[in-house]
Amino acid sequence: MDILAYGVFSVADGPRRVGVRSTDNIIDVSSVSHLLARGSLSPLLAAGFAEWQKTKALVEALLARGPDPAMVTPRRTATMHLPFSVGDYVDFYSSLHHATNVGRLFRPDSEPLTPNWRHMPIAYHGRSGTVVVDGTPIRRPTGQRGAGDFGPSRRLDFELEVGFVTGKGPTLGTPISVTEAEQHIFGLTLLNDWSARDLQSWEYQPLGPFLGKSFATSISPWVVPLPALESRRVGPPNQDPNPLPYLLPPGKGLDVDLEVTINGQVVTRSNTQNLYWTMSQQLAHATSNGATIRAGDLFASGTISGPTPEGLGCLLEITANGATGDYLQDGDTVTLSSSVLGECSGTVVGSLAT
Amino acid sequence: MDILAYGVFSVADGPRRVGVRSTDNIIDVSSVSHLLARGSLSPLLAAGFAEWQKTKALVEALLARGPDPAMVTPRRTATMHLPFSVGDYVDFYSSLHHATNVGRLFRPDSEPLTPNWRHMPIAYHGRSGTVVVDGTPIRRPTGQRGAGDFGPSRRLDFELEVGFVTGKGPTLGTPISVTEAEQHIFGLTLLNDWSARDLQSWEYQPLGPFLGKSFATSISPWVVPLPALESRRVGPPNQDPNPLPYLLPPGKGLDVDLEVTINGQVVTRSNTQNLYWTMSQQLAHATSNGATIRAGDLFASGTISGPTPEGLGCLLEITANGATGDYLQDGDTVTLSSSVLGECSGTVVGSLAT
Repeated sequence: MDILAYGVFSVADGPRRVGVRSTDNIIDVSSVSHLLARGSLSPLLAAGFAEWQKTKALVEALLARGPDPAMVTPRRTATMHLPFSVGDYVDFYSSLHHATNVGRLFRPDSEPLTPNWRHMPIAYHGRSGTVVVDGTPIRRPTGQRGAGDFGPSRRLDFELEVGFVTGKGPTLGTPISVTEAEQHIFGLTLLNDWSARDLQSWEYQPLGPFLGKSFATSISPWVVPLPALESRRVGPPNQDPNPLPYLLPPGKGLDVDLEVTINGQVVTRSNTQNLYWTMSQQLAHATSNGATIRAGDLFASGTISGPTPEGLGCLLEITANGATGDYLQDGDTVTLSSSVLGECSGTVVGSLAT
Repeated sequence: MDILAYGVFSVADGPRRVGVRSTDNIIDVSSVSHLLARGSLSPLLAAGFAEWQKTKALVEALLARGPDPAMVTPRRTATMHLPFSVGDYVDFYSSLHHATNVGRLFRPDSEPLTPNWRHMPIAYHGRSGTVVVDGTPIRRPTGQRGAGDFGPSRRLDFELEVGFVTGKGPTLGTPISVTEAEQHIFGLTLLNDWSARDLQSWEYQPLGPFLGKSFATSISPWVVPLPALESRRVGPPNQDPNPLPYLLPPGKGLDVDLEVTINGQVVTRSNTQNLYWTMSQQLAHATSNGATIRAGDLFASGTISGPTPEGLGCLLEITANGATGDYLQDGDTVTLSSSVLGECSGTVVGSLAT
């Protein structure tokens, strides 16, 4: 795996340190810059685009000359941590196939896509305080499964997503243009937006998902800086109708392979090319009203479903809401993986309620 | 005004200091405890319930013996700041009158209340990074007012709300019970959840409000600790049907007077007794799925409308979505006030777009 990725690790009871990954090892890069010396990516995120470039060059120079053996830790002996402090967490809904499939299942009497969907990257705010790192056990949530029915969720699901993390934006009231957007995007992670479909379907009208999503969101421990994905850039998706001027030019898409396994069995293969809106459009839209961004804000793609049955990004779609298969069982381990982004796993543990 | 309230202030270019308010002055209390010495309420919030009680006793002792004149600053010479670092921001929808009125206006062909409304305190996550303090100018947001129609909002509104701010919760996966909830609630603020109704109505299906709300949310500079409102506690609201066991006992309600003026003219008088769900129920519900809370998490009540035309909590209701009156104009100053919570103002400034 030769694509640069930053993470935060510790060994035994030692301090948290910033490192970059190699196939089997983690290279400690905290001595390269004061921005990497604090055991978190947050200072680097806050420093902005020019510092991101300088830091990447310093890290690559270190790797090129070969790190001191004392700076190399075998990955199997390290504990990974949440790599940055999450500001706001926004979840988009940018896969046409996913939005269409979910619309059919949740609102069978309406058009599957709401009228706004092809005009803007639809999104909502999720809970940033429950974003957890790969490997964190996921407690089955309890909640209202319908009127008068409270108990452990029976429809616990994963969602295959990628997330991007930002630096600081301009002052409140100043939008980020679509052409400037990528200068505010530090890098990408894998993201599993765990969802309790029974809680979600009962609660989500009229104000959107809340407890059906807020119990946990997992991200991969490695953040891949955007410039490291240059070879994976592709043209933007086909968009019809033509978006409004503030969403043009659309920016580039990404060709990042994605896979999901449950207990080691592949259940989905997808790709970020299945996203209808680009990251640049998402960020320009999210700030078009003057909302500002902070270092560490996390923007997720929404579930990335492809056009075929083999590429559906969640069990809601794969099982037709439980009709043709099971939701997650206690003990199940869900792993998202990608040849460029790494892995993001979580194991379901039983509810505290009975 | 003899009800204890904490805020963060500075004079000229001086440092931020924690103070408590008196009628005309601010008393610097930063020397009372190391938890108040950092120019923010965040350390106190993080310290938890027992420290909140100790600190309150220390502050009251200082006030009783009379502060040194050097610790007294006239309020008119001070600049107030956001009193704490906001974690997650959640907005409830807990006024029966407001939810009914909005349902009639936004979904005229359906029952005004969704089927879940009387079973749970409906809520969604808002944007914590755009919570601003009283006095911050509010830039008119730009956005999609409908398909293919982008420009400054023509339906800019206020929402009369109160917010409560929390300390740290138990670990992820452990709900806060309704009976323990108040030990996690530090205190209350006024809150104006500015809303762009044209953006909101076009974007909000199916995932809830996003850009129609995320451009700014104002809070009052003074946080009134919950124990200081003891004389304002009232019985819980009448709830029909009886809530599920995890929402019982309901906890207490509050009798806090509320008023809104636009350019000095009173447009609304309401009261927190118009809330259907208590704060204890809101917090127990929000964590019932195992979601944790952090120090500085902000939970807003939702618009507090009363049963009569004089008590409607936003212009959407007051003007029947613009049919019987105007939305906010550039230059308008909206002020929420309360004899116990103080004031929360904001003046609308014109859009950057033309």
